[in-house]
Amino acid sequence: MPVGTQGSVKAVSPEDLSDANVRIILANTYHLYLRPGHEIIDRLGGLHRFMNWTGPILTDSGGFQVYSLANLRNISEAGVTFQSHLDGSNHFIGPEEAMEIQRALGADIIMAFDECVPYPADYEYVLNSVRLTSLWAKRCIKHKKDSGQALFGIVQGGMYSDLREMSAKALVEMDFDGYALGGLSVGEGRETRQRVISETRNFLPDDKPVYLMGVGGPEDLVEAVMLGVDMFDCVMPTRNARNGTLFTSKGKLNIKNAGFADDKRPIDEGCRCYTCCNYSRAYLRHLFMARELLAYRLNTIHNLFYYSDLMEGIRRAIAADRMDAFRQAFYEDFG
Amino acid sequence: MPVGTQGSVKAVSPEDLSDANVRIILANTYHLYLRPGHEIIDRLGGLHRFMNWTGPILTDSGGFQVYSLANLRNISEAGVTFQSHLDGSNHFIGPEEAMEIQRALGADIIMAFDECVPYPADYEYVLNSVRLTSLWAKRCIKHKKDSGQALFGIVQGGMYSDLREMSAKALVEMDFDGYALGGLSVGEGRETRQRVISETRNFLPDDKPVYLMGVGGPEDLVEAVMLGVDMFDCVMPTRNARNGTLFTSKGKLNIKNAGFADDKRPIDEGCRCYTCCNYSRAYLRHLFMARELLAYRLNTIHNLFYYSDLMEGIRRAIAADRMDAFRQAFYEDFG
Repeated sequence: MPVGTQGSVKAVSPEDLSDANVRIILANTYHLYLRPGHEIIDRLGGLHRFMNWTGPILTDSGGFQVYSLANLRNISEAGVTFQSHLDGSNHFIGPEEAMEIQRALGADIIMAFDECVPYPADYEYVLNSVRLTSLWAKRCIKHKKDSGQALFGIVQGGMYSDLREMSAKALVEMDFDGYALGGLSVGEGRETRQRVISETRNFLPDDKPVYLMGVGGPEDLVEAVMLGVDMFDCVMPTRNARNGTLFTSKGKLNIKNAGFADDKRPIDEGCRCYTCCNYSRAYLRHLFMARELLAYRLNTIHNLFYYSDLMEGIRRAIAADRMDAFRQAFYEDFG
Repeated sequence: MPVGTQGSVKAVSPEDLSDANVRIILANTYHLYLRPGHEIIDRLGGLHRFMNWTGPILTDSGGFQVYSLANLRNISEAGVTFQSHLDGSNHFIGPEEAMEIQRALGADIIMAFDECVPYPADYEYVLNSVRLTSLWAKRCIKHKKDSGQALFGIVQGGMYSDLREMSAKALVEMDFDGYALGGLSVGEGRETRQRVISETRNFLPDDKPVYLMGVGGPEDLVEAVMLGVDMFDCVMPTRNARNGTLFTSKGKLNIKNAGFADDKRPIDEGCRCYTCCNYSRAYLRHLFMARELLAYRLNTIHNLFYYSDLMEGIRRAIAADRMDAFRQAFYEDFG
């Protein structure tokens, strides 16, 4: 899922997304709640209509951004009090509010409200956080009622194996439509992340989607899929595109590189995206150096296409039962 | 002609231009000469291929930007020495260089190299400038030879009626493919500009296109057409779009206006552009306030469509010999 934080996947239009084979996008509840406000979006017919995207949307619960962007005031069993990062205004979101905001936005998949613990955090803190997240998860299910939206629970527990197990089992007990792994990609390192994913996955059902939140690079996706993860979101393809870092089957490429100044080739000679079909590295480098807005769009289209194509390849490999071979070939090329 | 200064009409793609009924664009010789360099563009197959635009392109001579952007060092009969506004490097462009750069860029219409006088300027200064511009014009014709490009001369002469006449007659004598009115829209006021256009137009042939450079607002276009002008270029539709000012049949609209926060209507209810067909004022306001890159593209598409539509209406009115009625109706709506 490309990330459309403020109701727009940065630099591209809905048609650009479709053309890049994007099937589902993520939008951030926290941002849309603050601006333009979920009530306005509700009155305008919901987020799909607001942003002119007819495909599926997943909204996060707002939790992660409340902890990472807002000025946090207080966490209680009721919910979280915080100050907006935009204007310092005071707000409160608890599990009931998170369900109501996401109902108003009208996403197809919504997320339970969780507490995201900082990393590192000591055992007692994380234990209490897991208990609170389970309590909130139950209240989310109760409050959501029949909005017709799929609701995913979020497994927390930091890097503690037994707390991840506790969190996963508590949520599975509540029978969510899907399960997310939260609180990863927070500086714990790849090895620890792989361990937590692998251990936690054992306690999640095989017939429900498993979603690894906020991850990641192409290698991270391949590795997590090997461990049984189905869904991802990450700003990497879009943010990197805007920084001039482009993904290719042979690895990353920095479009600012002076060597591209008169390079007639597309970003990736095997790629069939709009950007690669129509523009040279020389032109893309020029646009980027000249800070032309078109640079961000063309780069984003390519990176999104790359990610879509990678996931499509993974799906085909799984269907043909040759994921190991796919992984090996991926590393041989990507390096 | 929308302005694609650096080989890109800011915020939009070639397909966006076509969809907005844009038929021809302008690119700036000075900018492309400095970055990425005309020789690179030549090696890559010319500007059309470089930027993926198959329609006609007009390049200016570089003159205006040398005088307005660069740090001017010296003007002699040979040409102009200046320092790049990008890195302070030293450069020289004379009429022969202007022809060679524009040949390398490969535009369909190219402009003679002229001296643009500041405003206001005294009579003697402008007289000498007109003489120099005529001298350079002759050398441009001589140097251009058979590039297959159409070459337009640029009438100068400041706000002095007799100097405009002198400049126009000298250029017409040389038999250019078209004639531009330069040195206007420099702070002289609408009345003076109208007088200069009107007087100068008398000395230009009716069977060649007349191009008013760097103008203007919708009213300016309507008025100049009444005086016999055929072509225009201006950054107004694109720059205004990026500032949130949108043109409608009822006048201008500022998308930042708080009243649009939950306005379901398109920018202009009668408009059939991509933006108006798919997005509400509320969404466009949100994108603009949130500084989403998509805002600039959607706004630009609308303003370009508005300008294309205005010129299409003018062409139809002229063909039907009802330009006076068109003008009256325009002012009744636009206000």
